[in-house]
Amino acid sequence: MSNWLDEVRWNEQGLVPAVAQDAASGRVLTLAWMNREALAETARRGEAVYWSRSRNRLWRKGEESGHVQRLVELRLDCDGDAILLRVEQAGGIACHTGRERCFYRKLDQEAWVTTDAVITDPAAIYGKK
Amino acid sequence: MSNWLDEVRWNEQGLVPAVAQDAASGRVLTLAWMNREALAETARRGEAVYWSRSRNRLWRKGEESGHVQRLVELRLDCDGDAILLRVEQAGGIACHTGRERCFYRKLDQEAWVTTDAVITDPAAIYGKK
Repeated sequence: MSNWLDEVRWNEQGLVPAVAQDAASGRVLTLAWMNREALAETARRGEAVYWSRSRNRLWRKGEESGHVQRLVELRLDCDGDAILLRVEQAGGIACHTGRERCFYRKLDQEAWVTTDAVITDPAAIYGKK
Repeated sequence: MSNWLDEVRWNEQGLVPAVAQDAASGRVLTLAWMNREALAETARRGEAVYWSRSRNRLWRKGEESGHVQRLVELRLDCDGDAILLRVEQAGGIACHTGRERCFYRKLDQEAWVTTDAVITDPAAIYGKK
């Protein structure tokens, strides 16, 4: 029996890019990466689980911040090499900088300009360690 | 003088993932890839230009189909390693299968189910060669 996970075209590192979109506002929040285990666990838990390339381990989104992404819908693209998650973003903050979304910079006259304010200071989110 | 293109963190292949979102509907249309030249040309032309990994060349979106993506806004994420384009999608079709978006499959009970209809037969879009 074929498995839905086998239809994903993982790259050479066994990863696939995963775009998280806020199901309510439609805002694109983050682009992260998933390996097979992360995608399987995302579907099983109903919450976004990524593969952290910097920490080289599974990253249950919100595990430190509490800003979990509850899964509304999981989609696969035509080539099978990109995932789209529509989510409910807990706390309304997806970015580790304390902003709603990671895409908070906009190109304006050949410069990346920050357009989104910090909602909560990261020190308050993650604690001062 | 620092260049906005230098702030992008290109991967080992000199590429960065680029998410295209319909500016009107908010739908996530495609995930494609850009190299430095593609991103520079996207900003200059005001239309999406990608790097085709399969064809190994610049891909001016719509060059064959006419389904260009007019640039509304270009965004960069916190880590500088993902791009978001808000676009006006010509013809209302982004996918080479003749659908509005590439993310036309949804996970439903452990199966990827096609939820979006073909708007125009690809044979009619690309011509029968």
